[in-house]
Amino acid sequence: MTSMEVEVNWEVFVAALAGVEVITDAAQVAKLSQDYHTFSPILQRDLAGKVGDIVVRPATEAEVLRVAAVCAWYRIPVTVRGAGTGNYGQCVPLHGGVILDMSRMQRIGWIEKGVARLEAGVKLAALDKKARESGWEIRMAPSTYRTATLGGFVAGGSGGIGSITYGQLRDRGNLLALKVVTLEDEPRAIELRGDDVQKVNHAWGVNGIITELEIPLAPAYPWVELIVTFDDFMTAASFGQALGDADGIVKKLITVFAAPIPTYFAALRQYLPEESHAAFLIVAESSLEVLPGLIQEYGGKLTYQKSAQDANKGVNLWEFTWNHTTLHARSVDSSITYLQSLFPLDKSLQTVEQMYHYFGDEVMMHLEFIRVNGAVIPAALQLVRYTTEERLNEIIRYHEANGVFIANPHTYIIEDGGRKQMDPEQLKFKQMVDPYGLMNPGKIKALMAS
Amino acid sequence: MTSMEVEVNWEVFVAALAGVEVITDAAQVAKLSQDYHTFSPILQRDLAGKVGDIVVRPATEAEVLRVAAVCAWYRIPVTVRGAGTGNYGQCVPLHGGVILDMSRMQRIGWIEKGVARLEAGVKLAALDKKARESGWEIRMAPSTYRTATLGGFVAGGSGGIGSITYGQLRDRGNLLALKVVTLEDEPRAIELRGDDVQKVNHAWGVNGIITELEIPLAPAYPWVELIVTFDDFMTAASFGQALGDADGIVKKLITVFAAPIPTYFAALRQYLPEESHAAFLIVAESSLEVLPGLIQEYGGKLTYQKSAQDANKGVNLWEFTWNHTTLHARSVDSSITYLQSLFPLDKSLQTVEQMYHYFGDEVMMHLEFIRVNGAVIPAALQLVRYTTEERLNEIIRYHEANGVFIANPHTYIIEDGGRKQMDPEQLKFKQMVDPYGLMNPGKIKALMAS
Ligand SMILES: Cc1cc2nc3c(=O)[nH]c(=O)nc-3n(C[C@H](O)[C@H](O)[C@H](O)COP(=O)(O)OP(=O)(O)OC[C@H]3O[C@@H](n4cnc5c(N)ncnc54)[C@H](O)[C@@H]3O)c2cc1C
Ligand SMILES: Cc1cc2nc3c(=O)[nH]c(=O)nc-3n(C[C@H](O)[C@H](O)[C@H](O)COP(=O)(O)OP(=O)(O)OC[C@H]3O[C@@H](n4cnc5c(N)ncnc54)[C@H](O)[C@@H]3O)c2cc1C
Repeated sequence: MTSMEVEVNWEVFVAALAGVEVITDAAQVAKLSQDYHTFSPILQRDLAGKVGDIVVRPATEAEVLRVAAVCAWYRIPVTVRGAGTGNYGQCVPLHGGVILDMSRMQRIGWIEKGVARLEAGVKLAALDKKARESGWEIRMAPSTYRTATLGGFVAGGSGGIGSITYGQLRDRGNLLALKVVTLEDEPRAIELRGDDVQKVNHAWGVNGIITELEIPLAPAYPWVELIVTFDDFMTAASFGQALGDADGIVKKLITVFAAPIPTYFAALRQYLPEESHAAFLIVAESSLEVLPGLIQEYGGKLTYQKSAQDANKGVNLWEFTWNHTTLHARSVDSSITYLQSLFPLDKSLQTVEQMYHYFGDEVMMHLEFIRVNGAVIPAALQLVRYTTEERLNEIIRYHEANGVFIANPHTYIIEDGGRKQMDPEQLKFKQMVDPYGLMNPGKIKALMAS
Repeated sequence: MTSMEVEVNWEVFVAALAGVEVITDAAQVAKLSQDYHTFSPILQRDLAGKVGDIVVRPATEAEVLRVAAVCAWYRIPVTVRGAGTGNYGQCVPLHGGVILDMSRMQRIGWIEKGVARLEAGVKLAALDKKARESGWEIRMAPSTYRTATLGGFVAGGSGGIGSITYGQLRDRGNLLALKVVTLEDEPRAIELRGDDVQKVNHAWGVNGIITELEIPLAPAYPWVELIVTFDDFMTAASFGQALGDADGIVKKLITVFAAPIPTYFAALRQYLPEESHAAFLIVAESSLEVLPGLIQEYGGKLTYQKSAQDANKGVNLWEFTWNHTTLHARSVDSSITYLQSLFPLDKSLQTVEQMYHYFGDEVMMHLEFIRVNGAVIPAALQLVRYTTEERLNEIIRYHEANGVFIANPHTYIIEDGGRKQMDPEQLKFKQMVDPYGLMNPGKIKALMAS
């Protein structure tokens, strides 16, 4: 690994950025150098002690351009940060330098005809709230919806609540345009539209600083949250698949948990009988009429229902799903970690069943049904009772050998995660926008060889 | 076939219904005994001369109840009629009797939170217009949308424009409740909700007289209509599949025509170069940004685009799709008839390709992509250059032998069409609501044996 440690006179740096907010307090800088990679014991070990030198908090694109110019001039590594809720240490600087905190850029430009234009630091929940005023909402959101920024979601996330209908962020149509500031000698703000957005989509902040985004919205249905419990896991899973495949039922979330996962949700205990397997659902109010029929077909039991009117009251089911499941489990037992998987398209869910039985309690099944290329399949964030790195890798390999795609969340290298290979278009774009290789350095394998 | 010809004193009948509108004029009665089965040379032959004795046009459910009582008392066959746009002679009375024309029952009860309650005679276009006032629209509609009634669509249709997103009418969730009047000695109006609607869904008017329906609506996106042309049919078809599978692109229609079908559309000639294969699309405005990328990937050429603002101006592309394609083709060459098919789930579209090459110009490929059990597959209403009944059956058998499901539109027997077998629940329900077997008699094979 190349060392990029640079000798920077930070006083000169700060002076050059006069007027831009900076944070130099060591404790705060350390805190803003962190994210949620701590869910992984491997990343916890590998990223320990990695901190930036200074945090810069631009409030406008003009300020971002100034920061970019100064960093390019002094060849200072730049790690962009939204809310720092990423899970792969994407926000953790491997070579110090500037933490560029985008969370002050919270302007929502416009919302029109189902499209929103906004700054990268806008929180998903804030956008959603604003969009709802005109009958729209975001198409998909991670379970960190309350805190995560849109820029961070696009640069570091994949999908979430809503993906059962709209697929993932990477799918054509879920991102319409974005503007990035380059780290060239004379930084520019470049607008990418249409398919060109893929040059920056999910690029972990290595391909320019996203300042603005344009995303399509979804119609805001009145949504109902429900819990359905089952005596048998595979029946719960098949119910999830059937609901996913029911084209006449409008839905936003289908999560299925094997026992004992529901026992980690203390706040929901009364709705989750001992030993039960559970489906957490978000369904449009206009689809409620026909849900009992489907539930009955699979022998499920409806134990909880929160109406659309009460959306802002009490607990939010979605904050127990996606990687919040891991969060809740870890708060009970911090030895638990997780996997990220995509099961093959197969309505009989044979591979799910195989893994469920093969690993038993060591890998607890947590399915998130999503659309992938037009079909509903179970993604999974299985909970793993961690013992050793070797065993973890064995578990991963066994899944892969059986046709399960694993987006390994125990690495900070882009290609070792979900990508497997860096998109050549992204690499080409990187050469242009980041000629000195300053952006989030050390995370791209393809660049390490060179 | 049992003969049901009854001796009715129609004067007494009319007197018993004093106050209810009736039509006795022979020419009018003959006209209202017809539907669009004329697309099929077989049905044209088999249904020639079949007419009702009288048309009754109730304006309220109370009137329907009166008509039902009188018909039950005198054992008069009842053929319910919406707008009479059905294609299988569903509206043609095999044994005379009453034509019950529901088209006066046009009240829209309420539209709330994405659900509408309305009378069976409401025209789809009228409902759509009303729903749009509050941001909603119908989920799916046949291309006869301007004239067809909702009752007729539910009792006789299957799906259409919108089915690429919401699947078909029979899919759980696309119909929430309906009310039917029975033909018992003392007719009742029965409300069926949830899964119970399946007892009447697509029952061709044999299972009670639908007076009201409750259906879920879809959010009304601003829609754009487009034509994309291709040099090669299979590329056009693959484009259609890819667009269908693009979860991030919101759409309402994906139709693909092989040459020479586009030449039948005189009004669109300028957008359809000679020899070209064409895709007719309806896509949400917010998905337009990314469409050029996909079109380019498949070497298509965008030749026509009508913006959402102009929705009510000029031609409507959807009036060239679904069975309107057959209508336009037949207006040029009346020897043309058609098939109704569902191709197997296979993204490489091998069976489509096989049929395309095997039949050449005799069976012209017309694909309508729709969602079936959660996946996008091509349905088809191929145009057939008709020669003999024998050859038509041969064509059908060849498709079936190669895994293509055919909903034969050349029969007036329910089970010989798309159903294959009568749902036992529907038969049971029929025994209850129509104890004398008066409703649309002669169309159910299962009842002929007995
Ligand atoms: C409990 C929990 C649950 C989660 N659930 C989900 C989930 O359901 N789905 C999902 O996809 N993810 C999930 N995540 C991961 C993460 O929360 C989301 O991806 C989130 O959207 C990241 O947003 P952020 O603002 O926190 O980004 P950060 O963590 O701050 O940044 C993420 C990446 O984006 C880059 N970045 C941030 N802003 C910019 C910018 N303006 N320009 C360029 N690059 C930028 C960063 O450099 C980093 O590489 C979860 C995480 C946790 C801890
Ligand atoms: C050019 C053309 C294009 C078409 N495109 C499509 C398409 O895209 N998709 C599609 O599904 N169909 C299509 N059709 C068939 C037909 O137009 C539709 O199914 C339409 O919805 C039927 O409505 P209608 O009011 O005309 O019904 P009708 O033809 O009047 O009736 C259809 C059936 O329903 C029964 N019925 C009607 N009203 C009631 C009631 N109130 N209670 C009980 N039974 C009742 C009748 O007895 C009959 O069996 C097309 C037909 C044509 C001619």
